[in-house]
Amino acid sequence: MSVTLTEATTSTADQPRSAARDRRRQRRAAAASAPSTAYVARRIPTFDLLDEDGLQRIEATAERILAEVGIDFRGGDDRAIELWRQAGAEVDGDNVRFPPGLLAEVLRTAPAQFTQIARNPERSVEIGGANVVFAPAYGSPFVMDLDRGRRYGTMEDFANFVKLAYLSPHLGHSGGTICEPTDVAVNKRHLDMVYSHIKYSDLAYLGSVTAEERVEDSVEMTRIVFGADVLETRCAVMGNFNVNSPLVWDATMTRGIRAYARANQGSIIVPFILGGAMGPVTNAGAIAQAHAETLVGCALTQLERPGAPVIYGSFLSSMSLRSGSPTFGTPEPALGSLVVGQLARRAKLPLRCSGAFTTSKLPDAQSMMESATSMHAAVLCGANYLMHSAGFLDGLLSMSYEKFVLDADYCGALARYLGGLSVSDNDLALDAFKEVGPGNHFFGCAHTMANYETAFFDAALSDNNTFEQWSEAGSEDSATRANKAWKKMLAEYEAPPLDPAVDEALLDFIARKKRSMPDAWY
Amino acid sequence: MSVTLTEATTSTADQPRSAARDRRRQRRAAAASAPSTAYVARRIPTFDLLDEDGLQRIEATAERILAEVGIDFRGGDDRAIELWRQAGAEVDGDNVRFPPGLLAEVLRTAPAQFTQIARNPERSVEIGGANVVFAPAYGSPFVMDLDRGRRYGTMEDFANFVKLAYLSPHLGHSGGTICEPTDVAVNKRHLDMVYSHIKYSDLAYLGSVTAEERVEDSVEMTRIVFGADVLETRCAVMGNFNVNSPLVWDATMTRGIRAYARANQGSIIVPFILGGAMGPVTNAGAIAQAHAETLVGCALTQLERPGAPVIYGSFLSSMSLRSGSPTFGTPEPALGSLVVGQLARRAKLPLRCSGAFTTSKLPDAQSMMESATSMHAAVLCGANYLMHSAGFLDGLLSMSYEKFVLDADYCGALARYLGGLSVSDNDLALDAFKEVGPGNHFFGCAHTMANYETAFFDAALSDNNTFEQWSEAGSEDSATRANKAWKKMLAEYEAPPLDPAVDEALLDFIARKKRSMPDAWY
Repeated sequence: MSVTLTEATTSTADQPRSAARDRRRQRRAAAASAPSTAYVARRIPTFDLLDEDGLQRIEATAERILAEVGIDFRGGDDRAIELWRQAGAEVDGDNVRFPPGLLAEVLRTAPAQFTQIARNPERSVEIGGANVVFAPAYGSPFVMDLDRGRRYGTMEDFANFVKLAYLSPHLGHSGGTICEPTDVAVNKRHLDMVYSHIKYSDLAYLGSVTAEERVEDSVEMTRIVFGADVLETRCAVMGNFNVNSPLVWDATMTRGIRAYARANQGSIIVPFILGGAMGPVTNAGAIAQAHAETLVGCALTQLERPGAPVIYGSFLSSMSLRSGSPTFGTPEPALGSLVVGQLARRAKLPLRCSGAFTTSKLPDAQSMMESATSMHAAVLCGANYLMHSAGFLDGLLSMSYEKFVLDADYCGALARYLGGLSVSDNDLALDAFKEVGPGNHFFGCAHTMANYETAFFDAALSDNNTFEQWSEAGSEDSATRANKAWKKMLAEYEAPPLDPAVDEALLDFIARKKRSMPDAWY
Repeated sequence: MSVTLTEATTSTADQPRSAARDRRRQRRAAAASAPSTAYVARRIPTFDLLDEDGLQRIEATAERILAEVGIDFRGGDDRAIELWRQAGAEVDGDNVRFPPGLLAEVLRTAPAQFTQIARNPERSVEIGGANVVFAPAYGSPFVMDLDRGRRYGTMEDFANFVKLAYLSPHLGHSGGTICEPTDVAVNKRHLDMVYSHIKYSDLAYLGSVTAEERVEDSVEMTRIVFGADVLETRCAVMGNFNVNSPLVWDATMTRGIRAYARANQGSIIVPFILGGAMGPVTNAGAIAQAHAETLVGCALTQLERPGAPVIYGSFLSSMSLRSGSPTFGTPEPALGSLVVGQLARRAKLPLRCSGAFTTSKLPDAQSMMESATSMHAAVLCGANYLMHSAGFLDGLLSMSYEKFVLDADYCGALARYLGGLSVSDNDLALDAFKEVGPGNHFFGCAHTMANYETAFFDAALSDNNTFEQWSEAGSEDSATRANKAWKKMLAEYEAPPLDPAVDEALLDFIARKKRSMPDAWY
């Protein structure tokens, strides 16, 4: 079963020798596995599950939810409610009801695609259209690794994950709250998190959402890096905002959304709906609800500043009949994502949905069965910004070092999948059949030699050796290989250069902010 | 994060109590997770990767391979070559070249869909159209479990896997050579294998392909079960035949194909192409080759007996650039399967392709990352008969007990995925939003109570408990849970009833055949 291409090819004549060939092979192997940009241009169609009638039924239900039940804006963001009143919504205390068609009208100014710039211009990302950006998981209070098990996340863990994302050829974004750094006060940790994204990576990143002032700090630190004038025309930082489902927008969130929009920066608007808890147990109803909630959040950005970048987000989840616990990476939310993709395209907004979801507490078979199901849905549905692409374990309660590098590998496989299938004359290889003929192998033929180095994606952590080779190497499972891999990556990590003046200005800003208030742990 | 539906529901009034409710819950849980037939009716579209032009380019390449390079029929099946000559092909020694359009003409008599009957009529399977049948992996010389590691398969292992497939609610077919029973002589093991399928299961099964006489034995044993007259009009046994890629049909295979067709029984025609070895490294070329090879095998059945059931098969694989080893479950073959699905539909033939492929040597994260990628492709491309759905490890060299039950669980998730997404008024749940309103939970609402028991698929081996519950239960990974599960299944296994007269006749047939020849080990 095992064949060795190297043996076959080195038996042909006129091969360039040893060192030069090795260098070339390494270069081509890297080219075959790593994208040349921080985002992937999809060359496969989207998988459209519902027909026009089905989509209209969901959209009509969303319109009726918005018109007949409405959304509560709770917590005292009077400005948000006033904006809705001015736009033509019916306001009754906290409750806002939206006449059919209002949100679509407001959303006409939202960009269908925008660029989020990174401090390394080559790693800026296109968000929307046919582009896909893989970003780490977000928001776990715990971290895990095989050596130390589960524990609360710290700022050191946070920085480690920023470094791992920076080093992965398959992730194109540094994410946001990769894990909660619980060793830093709640009212100050956003400063250290944003600084870590800037200092230890050159990828685009997300800022804080937990208070309006923290949003403004995130924007201010980003202005220090890119220049205040640049942020007036370019998106350089975004926030990820959760709806308080069902049908409630909290003032902390809406103030944060408006703060980013005011600064012309981006928001990702995400209902998290566990079917049967924060929404109906039936998929279509949960999707209709999510659609309604998302559109309201997206439209709010346009009321605050027409043209501000915004991403239509969705996070659907299911429930175990046995335990009543939330489940992740199951088939129903995967189907739901396909429909969410259709709805986002019809709304002409960039999409964030799905991710490497799982309830498993280990980077085991269950974890990848669930994560692959969910990630496939994201790739098929046309998601543009793929939050939670790496590290997700334990129903998002834990960020796993091993899962992070395994997932990052899988993002590489999915990037290749997104690249589609070419039917050029070279790909069809008719001449190769004439050269090789029936019953002979293709190892050394001209077509193989010309194409094999870029033909197949090769996941770094997958073991493709023979059983005997694998046994001799210690019979390691993929989690064990992942454990070695992330340690090696961190040991060899080198920070990307950062202008010392910028670094100093950032540290000065952080120091002043931290001095200005006592620690708070809520 | 964890919510308990039970707590919420038992707090409402007028609930039926304890035992009756438990029974009802168990019944509905079973209904929610197990299909009522042995096959799944897909309610989602196929995912069509290529446009008309791309498909025509591949079909045209296949036609040119067939017309200009041809297929060698090696090993002396003169009758097959004569059939081709009579049909209008150009014969030059072993080499047969096919004028464009010839195969399509010959294949006009092949059924687009057929029934393979099982000895339990409720478990007969529809093969073709919008139907999907999940079958175990096929052909591994080794078996594996977590206790004993890797070892050669035996007849006991074989029977165990037949029992596990029979017990799984998500597998609908007993498969064929689930593992090689290496403790029985090569020229006699087919008798024991077919007997095991019949004795220990009531699902449909595959027979032998390794020699014409063994095919005839498989058919004869099937006649004993169903009646010789029944087999004249119904398909009750099939063989799985591999092309000797590239572009060679071996006489053992073609004689076997013709023997099944002569008896009106089925053949699955499968090129196994490792890109760069048995075909081009480029996807489009490998697909064109596979298409050509498959069509020739399928058409041969129609030359032997027009109307005989036949399945268009495909097994694409890739290669590791690092090691030159075959790789499985990678993105390129997954993309290839999507195109293969389009080609099979255009040829109006039932399709077998993809499976739970992996090169991993353990039921670990890698194994499910790869298997899920490949299984998703099978489900998306419209495959009808899904060989290798359960147990596949080690590049098909090993059949794994743990992987078997994990994969079977995943088939259940995919069956749910195939069920699609309904947009009925009940699913859209507008009344539930009006009942619940903003900010309240859906736990106890009427819509949740009416729908939750069938709302979500719940994989038996997935752990959805909290980290604390999971830790208290022993912090097991999914492979460890799978290890316990298959042992429990085998311990509780009860054979389906088999008519004692049929059993006796089978055993008598086997005894006579075994006495008629000395053991041979090749």
